[in-house]
Amino acid sequence: MNTLMNYTAENLWIIQQKGFDPSLQGKSEAIMTLGNGYMGSRSTEEEDYIGMRRDTFVAGTFNQFDENEVTELPNMPDLWNMNFKFNGRRLSLLQGMVSDYQKSLNLQNGELTRSFIWEIEELKLRFHYRRFISKTRLHFLASELTLENLTEMPVQVEAFSGINGQMTNSGSQHFTEGVKGYIENRYLQMMPQTSQSKIDFVLTVDHRLSENLEDLTKRAIMDRRAIYDQIKFVLKAGSSIQLEKRANVYTSIDKDLEDHSINFMRTNAIEEMKATADKSFDELLAESGDAWQQIWQKHPIKIQSNNFRDQLAIRFAQYHLHSTVPAHDERMNIGAKALSGEGYKGHAFWDTEVFMLPYFTFAHPEIAKSLVTYRYLGLEGAHKKAKSNNFEGAQFPWEAAWPTDGEVTPLLGAVDVVTGLAMKIWSGLIEQHITSDIAFAVKNYIDVTGDVEFARDKAYELLIDTAKFWSSRLEWSADKNLYEIRDVIGPDEYKEHINNNAYTNYTAAWNIRYVINLIEELKTSDTESYGKLDAKFNLSSLTRDLQEKLPLIFLPEPTVDGIIPQDDSYLTKKIIDLSPYMGEENIGRIHENYNTEQVNQIQVTKQADVLLLMLLFEGLFDKKLKLKNFDYYEPKTTHDSSLSLSTHAILSADLGKLEQSYDFFKRACDIDMGDYMRSSDDGIHAASLGGIWQMTIFGYGGVRMVDGKLRIEPHLPAEWSMLDFGFDYQGESLSVSVNHDGFTVQKKNNGTSVSFSYLDKIYTLVDELKFSF
Amino acid sequence: MNTLMNYTAENLWIIQQKGFDPSLQGKSEAIMTLGNGYMGSRSTEEEDYIGMRRDTFVAGTFNQFDENEVTELPNMPDLWNMNFKFNGRRLSLLQGMVSDYQKSLNLQNGELTRSFIWEIEELKLRFHYRRFISKTRLHFLASELTLENLTEMPVQVEAFSGINGQMTNSGSQHFTEGVKGYIENRYLQMMPQTSQSKIDFVLTVDHRLSENLEDLTKRAIMDRRAIYDQIKFVLKAGSSIQLEKRANVYTSIDKDLEDHSINFMRTNAIEEMKATADKSFDELLAESGDAWQQIWQKHPIKIQSNNFRDQLAIRFAQYHLHSTVPAHDERMNIGAKALSGEGYKGHAFWDTEVFMLPYFTFAHPEIAKSLVTYRYLGLEGAHKKAKSNNFEGAQFPWEAAWPTDGEVTPLLGAVDVVTGLAMKIWSGLIEQHITSDIAFAVKNYIDVTGDVEFARDKAYELLIDTAKFWSSRLEWSADKNLYEIRDVIGPDEYKEHINNNAYTNYTAAWNIRYVINLIEELKTSDTESYGKLDAKFNLSSLTRDLQEKLPLIFLPEPTVDGIIPQDDSYLTKKIIDLSPYMGEENIGRIHENYNTEQVNQIQVTKQADVLLLMLLFEGLFDKKLKLKNFDYYEPKTTHDSSLSLSTHAILSADLGKLEQSYDFFKRACDIDMGDYMRSSDDGIHAASLGGIWQMTIFGYGGVRMVDGKLRIEPHLPAEWSMLDFGFDYQGESLSVSVNHDGFTVQKKNNGTSVSFSYLDKIYTLVDELKFSF
Repeated sequence: MNTLMNYTAENLWIIQQKGFDPSLQGKSEAIMTLGNGYMGSRSTEEEDYIGMRRDTFVAGTFNQFDENEVTELPNMPDLWNMNFKFNGRRLSLLQGMVSDYQKSLNLQNGELTRSFIWEIEELKLRFHYRRFISKTRLHFLASELTLENLTEMPVQVEAFSGINGQMTNSGSQHFTEGVKGYIENRYLQMMPQTSQSKIDFVLTVDHRLSENLEDLTKRAIMDRRAIYDQIKFVLKAGSSIQLEKRANVYTSIDKDLEDHSINFMRTNAIEEMKATADKSFDELLAESGDAWQQIWQKHPIKIQSNNFRDQLAIRFAQYHLHSTVPAHDERMNIGAKALSGEGYKGHAFWDTEVFMLPYFTFAHPEIAKSLVTYRYLGLEGAHKKAKSNNFEGAQFPWEAAWPTDGEVTPLLGAVDVVTGLAMKIWSGLIEQHITSDIAFAVKNYIDVTGDVEFARDKAYELLIDTAKFWSSRLEWSADKNLYEIRDVIGPDEYKEHINNNAYTNYTAAWNIRYVINLIEELKTSDTESYGKLDAKFNLSSLTRDLQEKLPLIFLPEPTVDGIIPQDDSYLTKKIIDLSPYMGEENIGRIHENYNTEQVNQIQVTKQADVLLLMLLFEGLFDKKLKLKNFDYYEPKTTHDSSLSLSTHAILSADLGKLEQSYDFFKRACDIDMGDYMRSSDDGIHAASLGGIWQMTIFGYGGVRMVDGKLRIEPHLPAEWSMLDFGFDYQGESLSVSVNHDGFTVQKKNNGTSVSFSYLDKIYTLVDELKFSF
Repeated sequence: MNTLMNYTAENLWIIQQKGFDPSLQGKSEAIMTLGNGYMGSRSTEEEDYIGMRRDTFVAGTFNQFDENEVTELPNMPDLWNMNFKFNGRRLSLLQGMVSDYQKSLNLQNGELTRSFIWEIEELKLRFHYRRFISKTRLHFLASELTLENLTEMPVQVEAFSGINGQMTNSGSQHFTEGVKGYIENRYLQMMPQTSQSKIDFVLTVDHRLSENLEDLTKRAIMDRRAIYDQIKFVLKAGSSIQLEKRANVYTSIDKDLEDHSINFMRTNAIEEMKATADKSFDELLAESGDAWQQIWQKHPIKIQSNNFRDQLAIRFAQYHLHSTVPAHDERMNIGAKALSGEGYKGHAFWDTEVFMLPYFTFAHPEIAKSLVTYRYLGLEGAHKKAKSNNFEGAQFPWEAAWPTDGEVTPLLGAVDVVTGLAMKIWSGLIEQHITSDIAFAVKNYIDVTGDVEFARDKAYELLIDTAKFWSSRLEWSADKNLYEIRDVIGPDEYKEHINNNAYTNYTAAWNIRYVINLIEELKTSDTESYGKLDAKFNLSSLTRDLQEKLPLIFLPEPTVDGIIPQDDSYLTKKIIDLSPYMGEENIGRIHENYNTEQVNQIQVTKQADVLLLMLLFEGLFDKKLKLKNFDYYEPKTTHDSSLSLSTHAILSADLGKLEQSYDFFKRACDIDMGDYMRSSDDGIHAASLGGIWQMTIFGYGGVRMVDGKLRIEPHLPAEWSMLDFGFDYQGESLSVSVNHDGFTVQKKNNGTSVSFSYLDKIYTLVDELKFSF
């Protein structure tokens, strides 16, 4: 395999690429994405290459190109571009000789660097670029080039750098051109507006040049949808200079702006530029690095492994989760591709609740609160969706953008190999388990954090509303004398239009059961909340309805062989040799040979489905049953979804299959960091980042919430000699240190205690508890 | 100067580029543009490079991106793309070694070829591409690659070729994505629609492969806004294969389709593919070449010159005029950049009437008729414009798109070096001479062709309507006791908001005078037309109005020094050293140092203005006066407009300055064909093509219409030993042969005669007349 990625044990904070190949740059563009949750930007080269994807997104700024497309995060005008001519020759690493090339992301402070020496004919130049998006100043970003002339001849330099609004989302243009200006003969400014959502952007660029530039001229050049500085100077023999590009980004939905008029935003942008003018690039970078440091210091995770990449992987995961999570605004969520690519249009899926949210719930509950609040704000959209489908309550959209939008899943996907037409995407219509996924995640958030205020203000309402949806969703089967859920897609998206997907039915039933108990409890213990909710939902009548239906919901039972049927028909479908479709090199390849309908007829599973159910609701199934189902479904699972491996890793660890588990772990970590150079082209796999944390903390750290209670049951894979980690639990900060002999759990002794279980015994932790294996 | 262009005396039909530099490809992309008037496409490389502009336009398919932009010809999905990987390595001429590179356009049959040998590591391959847009089948285009493996090792080939709708107009996307399909497991299809004008496009591609391909696999891949065939095969050692790509293009405004439903158009497109399936690439090319041959044979122009490029230049001009003129549809006109680039958005200007139309009027009157009909259809838009400006009659738009649109000039242009903001473009508001330019061209069309039917059906109405506009446009000056025309831009666009531009006032007065006479004549000689027009215009009242005003129109008189003031203030403005702004290398450079207001204060002229007036209305001014004005204005004219040099060339030839004239001629021919590699990036200069024909036929051939009568007074420059040409005149076909001793005029003796003047004497031509100098 042709990989450019280069990881070393020497520095476990560095994601590095050695060597340059424009057809493989999608990898480093995506996995080195810079971001601060307000905005994110792929780490493209400063100069242009065919195939590069200069994507920069501002969280929440969704726009719909036209009525045939769904709303998506628009790719805003590019601010990083910097093209050069030296003695009239355009800088391109495809020509001449390139040496000492390296591009790397420092996860610790969010700094991207790129350096190389370029030789061609009379030229020999050394380039060293640095850039960051500030974690402190959410609107600010900067890049700096140190350019050195390694010859004894002066070089005529022409830099062309500015704001390029010719960017699109693969051809869809979301912005008006907007007014452009050259302010105070210094600042480039552009003010595009999104075409449908009418969000104003104000983009400002300031170039700062070393003082020793000879024959310097600088002038603004307006192109269509673009404004540039053309900077010309002579780079003396053997000399080096610095060229800095600072930029800021404001939009009319920014919560931190008191005034969203264009004029205010323009002035404000220039003022920020002036206010930071006295600070050097290094000072601004250090400021941002301090904010990153606070994240790293909160619950440091230390892994001692035979494979140094395990430590790097968990940092990689945390870095990206924090560079993409919009902690500043609860009207926004995390896209399935983070802010690192156009894939999935910036939409949030169950990926957030089932895969990413647990990290924030346990490690940064204040951020988790923002994310669950997003779903509360999404009730309006969920009502809209339920209503349009003739259901009641809150049916959450499969894909979500602005919280009140409701369903935004596109309707057409890739080409059908049989009909030659684009395949219909059914998820937005019939992949319905997301509603219970969200309910389950909200319940876990309350259990882990003990955030009663959120529960009373928002969570109870959301939980009841989702149970109400499920109740209306159930379909009576006169045959079975039971309620069914027909015509759905479960987590395994290779099965469309199936009846009684086990995952969907069990989680729906859980949602209803939980809410029956919740209402009962509130009635006695929190009459104020009960009263408020009763006014909204008529709780006694709702309870009656739920209670009547719950025992009649069809929950697929194990077959005589102990297999829970994934759905009504799965076990009757044909079994084929799946080996051509297994392994990271064959992801999605099954669709090259079978269309959706044909895949529907095969016992093949795209991603953990019954097994995920067994992981999330572990109390419902005994270990023997889990083992049987693991052995049945695992060989039929292609892991074509990046959401799959981590589930299998954790479940197999639970089942004592640690060797197999660690194999899943490594494969899961490699979804983005690995050698398949094209796998991150459309963006990183945000859910798999959450999966990396879950495999580590839930899988090997053994942390789990079971029926609302904390359990800690670590078990390290053979390759690991030690794992240290920490998390927040109900307002307390716990840390755990595990090795092959046993583990220690610590908490600051502040006079309180928390309890947790270990091997079915309950322990009360005041300051420290030690366990031996 | 770094030029890649290569012209040789050996073949005077070939526009050739030797050597490849992607930053200079704009030149050959534009000047080798293929087209058939229905569509035009820049001749970009098949594989992608940074900086290339894959523009393909279908005439008349205007669309407005949003309310801030003006309507423009949308850049449709690209059909020429063909990207390759060989043994996994992407074809890029920036890497490896390229030899025998040549790219050339054969003007004779409209065939573009490109060939080269590419060597990199284990690979050595020879490429030979050919392509054409059919001049016979207006919707059809094809390209063919012959690929040869020059090594003794087999090569794994992957071609990626299809329909790429990620194209934009510099970032503005005019199309919906549209439905895509893979029809009969063979034809790629895409059906985008323009966003505002709702024009449906149906694009179909068929790949045809040699039969000797080893290990061939082919499958359709849908990307966003794109559909491709991925074709893989093994190219055996030393073998060669052919890969052909055929495509067709239909739109819902096509006049030749009886049904504009998508379904009909789709089926029709596939049927055309099947109907041509039996024909080889060579046969289809030959068919198209035959149509070109008919054009070349009609009035062949032969130039014997010391400079072989003169012959090439006139063919270059004719080729491009015919590849862009929408002869098939009178609702369309010729854009200022033809169909060869995004510049000027596909809009038609006075460039058509004053610079290009004379060619068609004299050489292809049936095409000229279509072009003047476009203006007749444009009366609706012209009424709209007049009304919105509180004028009467027909005020033609400065920039025109769909005929009924009215004014479509954009409002903002390049950056103002003083204020830092985009400069306002005033032409759409106050550059008004186009209305008399059109009237003058229509009058000439009638005079030259004798097309009485067009005159009676359309031209009289247009002429009267424009005179009516001018009458309403006149402003009474109590000071002068005269009518003025204030606050205009004349042909010299470096002077904005001026009063009494000589060109504007004289041509407006001509328009009024002509119509007074026309009405008088119709009243007695064509009472039917008179009656029809009287019903529309109330001719007696209109005539009274025109007659009253005509003698009171202020027509700038020569100063004591014999200079006609370009406008009221020009001669009082300051005179500066203009040498830094002269010459093709400095075009537009004056705006780097002066903003519009400052340029307004200098005696500098962008392009022929008073001198153009003296050329078009030569009877109004005596030779002495013309000489004085030529000597005054020429040194102040930067020729920053491509419309300027040809006028100066013809006028100086008229004035006996043949040496200077020939210098202008060469510079004018080099506007596109010359060595300034960036000058055609936004498209070729369509008006200058007409200028090349005018310099040849009007300038040196001495053909002219003076007061409605034909004059032939040839005078060759010293470098030319012979000029043969022909033209149509009032239904007769004339040919002229000139050398330094005299000239011969011939006409087929069909019993009729035509008369023309030579040196103030009138001659009657029956079959042949010979003149000695």
